[in-house]
Amino acid sequence: MPEHKGASRLRLSGLCFLLQILNILLFAAFVRYSPESSSSLCSPQLNCSHRHQDSGFQHPRFRDVHLQVLLGFGLLVAFLGHYGPGSVALSILILSFSLQWALLIQGFLFSFLNGKIYVGARSMFSADFCTAAVLISTGAVLGRVNPVQLLLLALLEVTLCTLNEYVLLSLMGVRDSGHSLTLHTFGAYFGLMVSRILHQPHLDKRKREEQQDVRHQPDVFAVVGTIYLWIFWPSFTSATTVHDNVEPWAVLNTYFSLVASTMATFILSPVLYEETIPRMVQIQDATLAGAAVMGMAGEMLVTPFGALLAGFLAGLISLLGFRFFTPVLCSRLKIQDTCGVHNVHGLPGILGALLGTLLTLLATADTFGDRLEIVFPLVAEGSRTAADQAFFQLCALPLTLLLATLGGCLTG
Amino acid sequence: MPEHKGASRLRLSGLCFLLQILNILLFAAFVRYSPESSSSLCSPQLNCSHRHQDSGFQHPRFRDVHLQVLLGFGLLVAFLGHYGPGSVALSILILSFSLQWALLIQGFLFSFLNGKIYVGARSMFSADFCTAAVLISTGAVLGRVNPVQLLLLALLEVTLCTLNEYVLLSLMGVRDSGHSLTLHTFGAYFGLMVSRILHQPHLDKRKREEQQDVRHQPDVFAVVGTIYLWIFWPSFTSATTVHDNVEPWAVLNTYFSLVASTMATFILSPVLYEETIPRMVQIQDATLAGAAVMGMAGEMLVTPFGALLAGFLAGLISLLGFRFFTPVLCSRLKIQDTCGVHNVHGLPGILGALLGTLLTLLATADTFGDRLEIVFPLVAEGSRTAADQAFFQLCALPLTLLLATLGGCLTG
Amino acid sequence: MPEHKGASRLRLSGLCFLLQILNILLFAAFVRYSPESSSSLCSPQLNCSHRHQDSGFQHPRFRDVHLQVLLGFGLLVAFLGHYGPGSVALSILILSFSLQWALLIQGFLFSFLNGKIYVGARSMFSADFCTAAVLISTGAVLGRVNPVQLLLLALLEVTLCTLNEYVLLSLMGVRDSGHSLTLHTFGAYFGLMVSRILHQPHLDKRKREEQQDVRHQPDVFAVVGTIYLWIFWPSFTSATTVHDNVEPWAVLNTYFSLVASTMATFILSPVLYEETIPRMVQIQDATLAGAAVMGMAGEMLVTPFGALLAGFLAGLISLLGFRFFTPVLCSRLKIQDTCGVHNVHGLPGILGALLGTLLTLLATADTFGDRLEIVFPLVAEGSRTAADQAFFQLCALPLTLLLATLGGCLTG
Repeated sequence: MPEHKGASRLRLSGLCFLLQILNILLFAAFVRYSPESSSSLCSPQLNCSHRHQDSGFQHPRFRDVHLQVLLGFGLLVAFLGHYGPGSVALSILILSFSLQWALLIQGFLFSFLNGKIYVGARSMFSADFCTAAVLISTGAVLGRVNPVQLLLLALLEVTLCTLNEYVLLSLMGVRDSGHSLTLHTFGAYFGLMVSRILHQPHLDKRKREEQQDVRHQPDVFAVVGTIYLWIFWPSFTSATTVHDNVEPWAVLNTYFSLVASTMATFILSPVLYEETIPRMVQIQDATLAGAAVMGMAGEMLVTPFGALLAGFLAGLISLLGFRFFTPVLCSRLKIQDTCGVHNVHGLPGILGALLGTLLTLLATADTFGDRLEIVFPLVAEGSRTAADQAFFQLCALPLTLLLATLGGCLTG
Repeated sequence: MPEHKGASRLRLSGLCFLLQILNILLFAAFVRYSPESSSSLCSPQLNCSHRHQDSGFQHPRFRDVHLQVLLGFGLLVAFLGHYGPGSVALSILILSFSLQWALLIQGFLFSFLNGKIYVGARSMFSADFCTAAVLISTGAVLGRVNPVQLLLLALLEVTLCTLNEYVLLSLMGVRDSGHSLTLHTFGAYFGLMVSRILHQPHLDKRKREEQQDVRHQPDVFAVVGTIYLWIFWPSFTSATTVHDNVEPWAVLNTYFSLVASTMATFILSPVLYEETIPRMVQIQDATLAGAAVMGMAGEMLVTPFGALLAGFLAGLISLLGFRFFTPVLCSRLKIQDTCGVHNVHGLPGILGALLGTLLTLLATADTFGDRLEIVFPLVAEGSRTAADQAFFQLCALPLTLLLATLGGCLTG
Repeated sequence: MPEHKGASRLRLSGLCFLLQILNILLFAAFVRYSPESSSSLCSPQLNCSHRHQDSGFQHPRFRDVHLQVLLGFGLLVAFLGHYGPGSVALSILILSFSLQWALLIQGFLFSFLNGKIYVGARSMFSADFCTAAVLISTGAVLGRVNPVQLLLLALLEVTLCTLNEYVLLSLMGVRDSGHSLTLHTFGAYFGLMVSRILHQPHLDKRKREEQQDVRHQPDVFAVVGTIYLWIFWPSFTSATTVHDNVEPWAVLNTYFSLVASTMATFILSPVLYEETIPRMVQIQDATLAGAAVMGMAGEMLVTPFGALLAGFLAGLISLLGFRFFTPVLCSRLKIQDTCGVHNVHGLPGILGALLGTLLTLLATADTFGDRLEIVFPLVAEGSRTAADQAFFQLCALPLTLLLATLGGCLTG
């Protein structure tokens, strides 16, 4: 079978080459730096349909670009705890390709003008959100697909993810600053559906044994991953909530959520498993879940204890999901979930969306004060009531699930 | 002994659950975001007794919150070099709990108003200093107490640490920007006293063998920890010296101190031990010592060579302490010091406090210029002479030692 | 041979001691903080010959100092992937010493006034660039020289590197914001020449076997190193391009270059080696090469696809260099290159310099707009044509090579 190996080796190399040449050509043809270098991406004659771009954003442009790769790598690091360094090279490939591709696709949809795409720090930032969704999906199928399939998955998912974002943010005016829906939920269910379609029964047993092995590998990566997530995720969640007033709340809420979610792991883990101290991988998963739940609601929560409660619930749900839900998924629905993305991203994402809806319903000028027009500009203008906005927020959830599921089937 | 194990397992879980529920309830009852979202924590009707809050602080609020977990994790990483990943889960538990608890306790002492605590980025920041002190104490007793005892230790130490901070900063007007006293010295001696009380002779030998083992584990964590400390510690030390003028000096002084302390390790280590190149753990300890000594004096030093000298001395003291002082402590005073916190935090902290006193004594309008009213507002106003201020700074040292020792005895 | 060992041990210790005392004395005699604490390093009566200092630089002073150690440690981390933790202690020693020494030497050359050197955040920043060049050279000779030789190498190279920088930046007015020439190229060729002089045939075989061994060590460090470089390098490259307008382009260009260079590795690696997925060390080298090529051209490129193309070429060249050029270097020219610095820093540095020249030639007011006077102030003023500037840029390349080669011979 060596010549088969050699062929697959060269096929990956060839595909990368083709895609990269295609990217370079498309960039050469269409992409230009925005003339004033991203300072006023949204000049009057530019039809700014993209939500991100109409928020006044002066100073810390630099920092944004800086943060742009963090999420992607946060996820990389997170996977390390589960899968070891073997999969990192592959993830970096996916990341490199998706970043370019997402920039192109998003450019065509959001900021196409006079046959050119004008990119700046902002465009790169939202391209990265797309890349993160692709990486989450990758986490669900890791180890069961070959690199060529992964590249094709990335190709399709970036397109669909951008479409979903377009519908939700631009057409429906849904507020999802931390990307609970467009990133966590979409990525998780897309990956799960692909995993369902690609299900091969005879591989199951071998796979499960490997997974067993992974458990015993040193916790170095999980430790580094957890610390990394604590440090960088809160800044990430709040990166798009650019107003000086809103920012601190989103950051603080995320911290409170992380703290509570970690405590939840320490409470539930000894009950569910036969261990006094939870393993680092579990703590890392709890951290991710606590961060995912704050995606939509992060900037809406007005009391710290709400964040504590939400994080606490997310930590519990994530652990219960690992214990009881993953085996059911695996045996009944024949969906395998290599890195447990359903528990870590899927369920907390849904919880976060529901929480966001609830909070939207409760949003009044009293509780929000001046923040209202920042968080919900349409409500503040009076063109929508809070209930309407909540309804739109709620609708976004099944819509995202539908798109992700259909997309996953198609890709599979 | 399995049922005993199971019981202790569930006891930890139950205690976590109780404490977390208590925290959530207390947060629900008392804690609110400050209405203007931390932009003006210190409105006229708010009786701002806390020193941090009266320094004008406009722009980089975001960064502060971001830095807030860094110290805690810096310490975590530092312990990794000594103790390996096994203790990290425990440290994260302590961190999660202490953060919430410190926020509550500090809120009651410093910013209680109309029955509510208004938190913002600043409060979280100072809660983290408290957490760091708890982690230092934990380092002294790590491996000899069980998780439940650690949680109770955190419960008590947070309270005492806040009290100490209150007396020093608010009542005595001591200037301790890098927390040489309130953090390094208090944490170290508190931990040592607890360690003394908990001394169990029959455990000594086994422990020492384990420690021997640890020496041989790969240096991965020490490398990562050292790099981490170099990158983030200087920003941390200067995080509370918020004025644009003062900031660079504190950062630069800390860097110079780190550099000199590292050189000291390379000089002394071959003389004391039979090695050409010091081990990474030693370099990491020197880095910590060099950072700790700059705690109080960082913003007061007016010449770079002073920082070089102080760092050099701290590095030497720390190494000599490891070689000659720890065995004495262990055999005579029956104090065991798992991670060597006395040498790394205790001695350099005292040295830093003495240095700070000396510098305060020398502080005149000539050498400080405009900086005087920033660093020593009371001296600049004329309500105190430099000598008075130096006396207060000096008094703070035995007071802190006393409180730490008494508190440690009590807790033990 | 034990007493020989002991003697060399104490010799290193003694040398460190002497140098450190010398540094402290020189600092005490000459170095002072600039009175306004770096806010106006370049007061009228200060003869500011140094290029960095005349760019208006107000706000993010803090961040610069913060970034200052990043490059040095980025390189450290990069070496880890090749050589393991054993060499880190040595690198930290070199770093600690070079930083102080570079500050002194640069101070004497650039900002000596009234017998004092006034340092601030800026001086530390450029001292770090020097240190980075020393670390690159160290990478070429690592494992073949003893610590004492390394310290002497650092002593000489810092001096020569500062001289080179002085000639290029101050006398010739060359624009090299990301230090393609002064850092990457100079460091690489200096190290290679030293390696040539120190060539000892009988050591070759043993060395090559060791290198073989290194390949098999776990990829942990390479993974951490790669992620570290992705996160921090772009900010680093653009750290000296301080104007709000120029910054984003340099950052974005660097990102595009990194992405393309990574893709190139995935394309070429399966063709050259018998592996489907490249090893992490290769990906890390590609990342470094992609970053090095953007050194000079980063702020000049006006189209994203140019950055993609340059990064792509750099990735290809670096890999081809490893495969075909290093063996030739080793067998014909008797130059051994422990960490492959020629491929990773040398060749991409030259490519970057050539690209910068080309772009300078094409620089007109049309393509650059307002940026022209920021990037090429002399051209914008009319005192030079773009062709003249390009000529100077081109001349800088052989000049740097000459200085590096001569310096390397001398040091060897």
